[in-house]
Amino acid sequence: MLKQVSIRDAWKKKYPEQVVCATSVDEAGRGNIIPLGWFMPTSFQPPMCAISVGHTRYSHKLITQSGEFVVAFPAEGSEEDVHYCGTNSGRDVDKFAETGFTAASATNVAAPLIEECLVNFECQVAGKLDTGDHTIFAGGIVAAHVNEEAGRRIYNTGDYVFRAFG
Amino acid sequence: MLKQVSIRDAWKKKYPEQVVCATSVDEAGRGNIIPLGWFMPTSFQPPMCAISVGHTRYSHKLITQSGEFVVAFPAEGSEEDVHYCGTNSGRDVDKFAETGFTAASATNVAAPLIEECLVNFECQVAGKLDTGDHTIFAGGIVAAHVNEEAGRRIYNTGDYVFRAFG
Repeated sequence: MLKQVSIRDAWKKKYPEQVVCATSVDEAGRGNIIPLGWFMPTSFQPPMCAISVGHTRYSHKLITQSGEFVVAFPAEGSEEDVHYCGTNSGRDVDKFAETGFTAASATNVAAPLIEECLVNFECQVAGKLDTGDHTIFAGGIVAAHVNEEAGRRIYNTGDYVFRAFG
Repeated sequence: MLKQVSIRDAWKKKYPEQVVCATSVDEAGRGNIIPLGWFMPTSFQPPMCAISVGHTRYSHKLITQSGEFVVAFPAEGSEEDVHYCGTNSGRDVDKFAETGFTAASATNVAAPLIEECLVNFECQVAGKLDTGDHTIFAGGIVAAHVNEEAGRRIYNTGDYVFRAFG
């Protein structure tokens, strides 16, 4: 039986929610990482994916400036690092220095790859759509990298507690 | 160690992938269901979510025409019905008649709710972005309904095999 509830209460049903890490760079080439639950692939041909980033986030500024980002899927073992990246701002800290995440050079964009993630997609912004308090950045995927030693994807089980499934 | 691979091969790392069911209606008010892995929330205030729908899909036509859709999260027990909806077209079959999914009236849109889903969000299209072979429809969420008897969310573990997690 369906029961009408507040939209806020209904969202609690979304867990486990996927999580990805998006990286971007500032004008000096310093990399930043933001964990995002709001991600989706959005085209097969050409391959594209989309992320929603809050207007006030530092990554929003960096992606808008640079027109580029990397989307990486964090694996089991990175739970605490994802939590750290989601609860601190790149305006204040260097997330690569403060976590176990290691930056690696991408082939087509300035934003760094994350060595420990099971997959990294290099993206160039191909379209944008403002949606209330976020912007959807749609990126054309120009290169992909996998880490065969990485474990399973992790998911947010609610309240920022991450667990592997699959 | 990261290794560059084809984008196609890299996508195989995305499982388990979430799945939602989007409903829409034709001009006669007949409802249709499309399962989508490509979904994300996209704003807190106002509450919004986004889906990517292939240009050739019947649901693409219906959502474009009506400017409305419902996003529902299918629960364990609906695995076969989700598979059926994803492998048949609403141009040829009535998916509500052919599956265990039961249509219920929404309060603000003509698209039907799905009784068996753990949550249903009524959406009015507030923005669109074409992305290669899909369109991102960003919807303002105008009402939400939950089914407290429904089980856990299900995920695509690869090759359209659905399983509950959480």
